[in-house]
Amino acid sequence: MKFAQFLLKNGAGIPKQVERFAKFSPSPLSMKQFIDFGSANACEKTSFVFLRQELPVRLANIMKEIDFLPDKLLGTPSLKLLISWYSQSLLEIVDFLEKDPDNKDVLTNFTQTLVNVRNRHNNVVPTMAQGVVEYKEAFGVDPVTNQNVQYFLDRFYMSRISTRMLMNQHTLIFEGSVNPAHPKHIGSIDPSCDVVEVVKDAYETSKMLCEQYYLTSPDMEITEVNCTVPNKPENQTYCILFVTTFLFAHFCNPLCMFFCQNAMRATVETHETALTLPPIKVRVSLGTEDLTIKMSDRGGGVPLRKIERLFSYMYSTAPSPVHIDNSRNAPLAGFGYGLPISRLYAKYFQGDLQLYSMEGYGTSAVIYLKALSSESVERLPVFNKSALRHYQTSIEADDWCMPSKDPKKLGNSKRTL
Amino acid sequence: MKFAQFLLKNGAGIPKQVERFAKFSPSPLSMKQFIDFGSANACEKTSFVFLRQELPVRLANIMKEIDFLPDKLLGTPSLKLLISWYSQSLLEIVDFLEKDPDNKDVLTNFTQTLVNVRNRHNNVVPTMAQGVVEYKEAFGVDPVTNQNVQYFLDRFYMSRISTRMLMNQHTLIFEGSVNPAHPKHIGSIDPSCDVVEVVKDAYETSKMLCEQYYLTSPDMEITEVNCTVPNKPENQTYCILFVTTFLFAHFCNPLCMFFCQNAMRATVETHETALTLPPIKVRVSLGTEDLTIKMSDRGGGVPLRKIERLFSYMYSTAPSPVHIDNSRNAPLAGFGYGLPISRLYAKYFQGDLQLYSMEGYGTSAVIYLKALSSESVERLPVFNKSALRHYQTSIEADDWCMPSKDPKKLGNSKRTL
Repeated sequence: MKFAQFLLKNGAGIPKQVERFAKFSPSPLSMKQFIDFGSANACEKTSFVFLRQELPVRLANIMKEIDFLPDKLLGTPSLKLLISWYSQSLLEIVDFLEKDPDNKDVLTNFTQTLVNVRNRHNNVVPTMAQGVVEYKEAFGVDPVTNQNVQYFLDRFYMSRISTRMLMNQHTLIFEGSVNPAHPKHIGSIDPSCDVVEVVKDAYETSKMLCEQYYLTSPDMEITEVNCTVPNKPENQTYCILFVTTFLFAHFCNPLCMFFCQNAMRATVETHETALTLPPIKVRVSLGTEDLTIKMSDRGGGVPLRKIERLFSYMYSTAPSPVHIDNSRNAPLAGFGYGLPISRLYAKYFQGDLQLYSMEGYGTSAVIYLKALSSESVERLPVFNKSALRHYQTSIEADDWCMPSKDPKKLGNSKRTL
Repeated sequence: MKFAQFLLKNGAGIPKQVERFAKFSPSPLSMKQFIDFGSANACEKTSFVFLRQELPVRLANIMKEIDFLPDKLLGTPSLKLLISWYSQSLLEIVDFLEKDPDNKDVLTNFTQTLVNVRNRHNNVVPTMAQGVVEYKEAFGVDPVTNQNVQYFLDRFYMSRISTRMLMNQHTLIFEGSVNPAHPKHIGSIDPSCDVVEVVKDAYETSKMLCEQYYLTSPDMEITEVNCTVPNKPENQTYCILFVTTFLFAHFCNPLCMFFCQNAMRATVETHETALTLPPIKVRVSLGTEDLTIKMSDRGGGVPLRKIERLFSYMYSTAPSPVHIDNSRNAPLAGFGYGLPISRLYAKYFQGDLQLYSMEGYGTSAVIYLKALSSESVERLPVFNKSALRHYQTSIEADDWCMPSKDPKKLGNSKRTL
């Protein structure tokens, strides 16, 4: 394979480059910076000079953490493949550090390189997930490994979200050709999107799937709340649109699909004998700080004990590479990773995703986004002593004592489903 | 002062005893054990033999952690007073280890000692809070201290809840006299209580206070959901009552008062100009694992960024000792500690308290309790290496990099209130 030879040739340089760039902390950008740069007179040279340094820094920081994964996980074929992708991409970008920013060809080659890198990394999520599955099947799961893997994957996938955001913006803005599908977009940011419309689209698609299978589906009720803010500059309200639309395109739509589909299944199955189905309720509230979207079903709920597991990578069913291509439009639908990855997208710009359930009644998902683009700043992992400590914790007694009751609980949980 | 002389005489023995009993882990009891022991043929001797060992273990475990508080906090008059209470109580109980369980007088003296210990510790919460205030005023608050104090106080107050539970059960059951106020109680557990009634009581009291001040108040709507469980033994349903009633007596009632009062204030002030006030909605759902109580207002909500602070001991207004006596019936009303302490009571028997808000709309509090008394097991702090590590963390860089935006945020937050 091409990059195998490539690594054979340059492999030796990789640890040196990782050490070199991991010394720097990533530089988080605000959504406002993304927008201003993209919409105003975007300068390809400026972007090039920033990215040829920033991308290696973000890649190297996370590659340092990959080194601290359990050897048995690093030994899996999937992880070896994945590490080769990261190594090759790092070297390809570092290659441009010595090149002349005033040379048009250099800029064109750089953009092309970013496209190659982005495509090479398309299957990173399912490949990493596959590695975790291989590890689980071989060595089982213990709480400590689960905790370490959770800590790492949250950071690893967040790092990936951020590098893809940077590469997307640069390639879409400077590839020359206007994005045919979305001529008005600023890179991947669409200024003319409506939160409620996105929720409705997701509902309609899910409704169709639900009716194909169950021959019925619950209705959806949407309420909008806007708290009026005295003396609020126009552009702030305007910025809210940008933030939400970027996030909606990338995760709210898939998340709504994900929630709608689960909500519908749960509702239909919980109310089999009922004549009418309780609706899925959605409330969108715009405050001065937060844009909050709450989606509630009456699908019978989940016990508190199980909520955390819904966000666990190790306990959920992993996405398989096969699904990737046909699921690119709705990358989370059907993923066991739907919730943890959605939460990362929300957190990427300082928001959050929380799940509340009342066992015996229903479940609510609440999405928090920053209302102002100036406060939507990238949340990026950095490799440092604090991070290192997380990988070094050995198996230790809990600092709260209580008898494990898991087998018993599992018994009950079966009854609750 | 009496115990000052006492300590002068016995002080030397204290570190030895703390070391001796901190070597043991506390033994968590289940609510079922509390009930079975209290309702069946309760044996004072058995209880005595258990408590003279278990109480010193729980006291010593938390006294070890007190030692790791910042010296400047330990130096405050309040902390010195508090430590003297713990030291004296430890020695008084340890005194019974050599005594003869078959001697009726020994049992009587023990019960009396527990009454004295309980009364001595009545003001522990406000005294500790006062110490934190003194520390804050002298040295200010930094994130690390705030984090350590939060970690410690959650464990310290939880330990206190558990030791008072043990002492209450023993004294109420064996003091001989039936509890005049509640003849049917098993110690502090009341088998004949109704969740919904407790919520209604709290609402009525709050409504009265609200109308005195605002001349109006929102209504309350309560819905009950019971998911029917096939083949569920009678006694399990029965046990649910015990759990909820203990917790309701001790925290749900005060918490409901606390929430109702805040909800009413927020609702009235948010809807000043409206003709009608939106009601406070309560939903009680009984599942096979959880009993969930959700209380929602439409008081305008709180930004996500501020939610965590509502649970912080260092950032909230501390309870003052003066209030204690007149507030004993509703120990949380008006406390800045209302939320964090309520959450501890919920967690004490493996439940939880969660708060979520939609800025611009309203706030919900969700209380989770275990439905089965067999699964309601005490959650107790234990002093070990893992606990020790929490007190040894030095100031360190965050493992997520992002520019601090606090000043800016504070600016906005003013606008949102």
